[in-house]
Amino acid sequence: MKALTVARADGQARLATLQTGHGLVETPVFMPVGTQGTVKAILHRDLTEMGVRMVLANAYHLYLRPGDALIRDMGGIQRFAGWDGAVLTDSGGYQIFSLGVLRKIQEEGVTFQSHIDGSKHFLSPERIVEVQEHIGADVCMCLDECVPYPSSYEYTSGSVDLTTRWATRCRTAKNGSSLLFGIVQGGMYADLRLRSARDLLELDFDGYALGGFSVGEPKGVMWEMVDAVMGHLPWDKPRYLMGLGFPEDIVEGVRKGVDMFDCVIPTRHARNGSLFTGTGRINIKHARYGRDERPIDEDCGCSTCARFSRAYLRHLFVARELSSYYLNTVHNLFFYTKLMEEIRAAIRGGRFEQFYRDFTLKWKGGELHNGSSVCNG
Amino acid sequence: MKALTVARADGQARLATLQTGHGLVETPVFMPVGTQGTVKAILHRDLTEMGVRMVLANAYHLYLRPGDALIRDMGGIQRFAGWDGAVLTDSGGYQIFSLGVLRKIQEEGVTFQSHIDGSKHFLSPERIVEVQEHIGADVCMCLDECVPYPSSYEYTSGSVDLTTRWATRCRTAKNGSSLLFGIVQGGMYADLRLRSARDLLELDFDGYALGGFSVGEPKGVMWEMVDAVMGHLPWDKPRYLMGLGFPEDIVEGVRKGVDMFDCVIPTRHARNGSLFTGTGRINIKHARYGRDERPIDEDCGCSTCARFSRAYLRHLFVARELSSYYLNTVHNLFFYTKLMEEIRAAIRGGRFEQFYRDFTLKWKGGELHNGSSVCNG
Repeated sequence: MKALTVARADGQARLATLQTGHGLVETPVFMPVGTQGTVKAILHRDLTEMGVRMVLANAYHLYLRPGDALIRDMGGIQRFAGWDGAVLTDSGGYQIFSLGVLRKIQEEGVTFQSHIDGSKHFLSPERIVEVQEHIGADVCMCLDECVPYPSSYEYTSGSVDLTTRWATRCRTAKNGSSLLFGIVQGGMYADLRLRSARDLLELDFDGYALGGFSVGEPKGVMWEMVDAVMGHLPWDKPRYLMGLGFPEDIVEGVRKGVDMFDCVIPTRHARNGSLFTGTGRINIKHARYGRDERPIDEDCGCSTCARFSRAYLRHLFVARELSSYYLNTVHNLFFYTKLMEEIRAAIRGGRFEQFYRDFTLKWKGGELHNGSSVCNG
Repeated sequence: MKALTVARADGQARLATLQTGHGLVETPVFMPVGTQGTVKAILHRDLTEMGVRMVLANAYHLYLRPGDALIRDMGGIQRFAGWDGAVLTDSGGYQIFSLGVLRKIQEEGVTFQSHIDGSKHFLSPERIVEVQEHIGADVCMCLDECVPYPSSYEYTSGSVDLTTRWATRCRTAKNGSSLLFGIVQGGMYADLRLRSARDLLELDFDGYALGGFSVGEPKGVMWEMVDAVMGHLPWDKPRYLMGLGFPEDIVEGVRKGVDMFDCVIPTRHARNGSLFTGTGRINIKHARYGRDERPIDEDCGCSTCARFSRAYLRHLFVARELSSYYLNTVHNLFFYTKLMEEIRAAIRGGRFEQFYRDFTLKWKGGELHNGSSVCNG
């Protein structure tokens, strides 16, 4: 079965449909991050209302709590969590390797200590696939090794080989109807990235992800790595740039042919009071918004902007009311969802280059703009 | 203008309508507590959906943050907070006297330090009324002194006189169309309670509250104080028992002729995972709910029970997801709202005594039942 149907290309940008076990998902798509089986601060019905059809959950977190067997017994993550859209699960590689969790990497798999209670766990590539199948993910990710930045060429080269061997075992272990994506690694070495991609292509995955970013590398280097690989990925399979990013990064990624994105930025920033507008971000805690009767963004159609002023949202944020996190998250995710709709409309209309140029001119990053562009978690 | 229209009495229990600046409110009514201008963890639209027509806000908190002048300039609390129902503001007496805020009581008013930043403030009875009028409350409360429990007869007697003098000044200061309620004090001395009530009756307030409870007194003593006063309050004016309580307390209060209640119990307990069911409370964090596919309460019609299992709600609570507080709060407030509807229907049908007996038989307080019954804040 072919998971992706490309409807239209515009340069390298592609408009496509991803067939999942829980419906069709139009790409390019941004997947909100629901680490523990729920997108932080809001409800799944809010996601449905704003048109989100696919979210990311985290196999590492759900394996630890409430446990993959429990989710399986409850009928899978969609039934358990009351979400009728698609779910992609991150394998946990990023969490295990990059979030400071105590871990040991061996050929057989990874041994690590839980960030919750310090308990010791071993996960093999086979078990990681089983965990994701128990969760009931529509798209599963292979176990991979994320190398730190910087890492030596030798270490990274050996790591690419390990990731390939693990990917082979994941491919064999796959048992259900979920899609399984391979993850291209290779640190910041273009030739290793290419080798990783070619190794994985031989295994014929349902889709290909680019992982191992958000580890402190300069943004330019990251895009070089993307460029090194993208042209070698098959046209008819989904391409997923993991853990990215700010709006400008998503627009850039689409231009390079990426179909899928996920990032904690819209949700985490919302909880920090950093809100997206058509020209960049504002921080709602600033005193200047204390008596500002305008919505966050006058052009926004979200339910927060329809009902609440900056003044009230500032009050809620400063008073640390839980509804602040809710209302801010609704706004930021609506912003991302609308951005993806605009991107898809531009590709559909054969005017993505124009969209890209207009966006780049208009988008200043706002008062909070900074150079950091990638995220994960 | 008469604020209250009694439609039906059943024993001492009354079914009535309170006319406010923001619509009619059927009584007996339970007002969810929205201390800082929002009921914690949920949105005003959720309150509207479940039929809540009146909430409590706290003048002390809103005076400190964002400030009453700001709320006035933003068009009042309803416009500022996007809430189209009625608002009663607590004067702040309870906060200033009982929450450990550093304060000094003088004839002129109270001097206290902000719990937020330690800044020093003085509020006279006149200013307290102005603050509430700036906020745009539909019902304002007089400044009163809450005496600690226990307090000597002499101290309490003097305090009643001070509360009466302050009430007189509040009555004179009232400027707008808001309703103004007097607050009966008198500690745990029935004769002082009665004197306080008679003093206030001479001032002809729009309604009468019973305050100064939730200070550590035994429940039986509290009810004695209520009994001492209730028969002396005018039939055609609203009676408000401040800061109460558990469902059994509300049913008891209605039976004694109380029209209005407020309490943080349903919302605070929700955030602690303590959820109301038809027979009492359960704590969702218990391991026994880990694989429980039932809703919190199979007879409940709330949106949480319609969509989520105890197993998932336990996961959200244990994982400290913000949506846990939201979903739990929706459930508990729906429970209280439905309880009030049932109470009103029983009075309307002339069968409140039967309702009272059935409720008392069925209601066991649940696994978490304890003797504490009053709350405030």
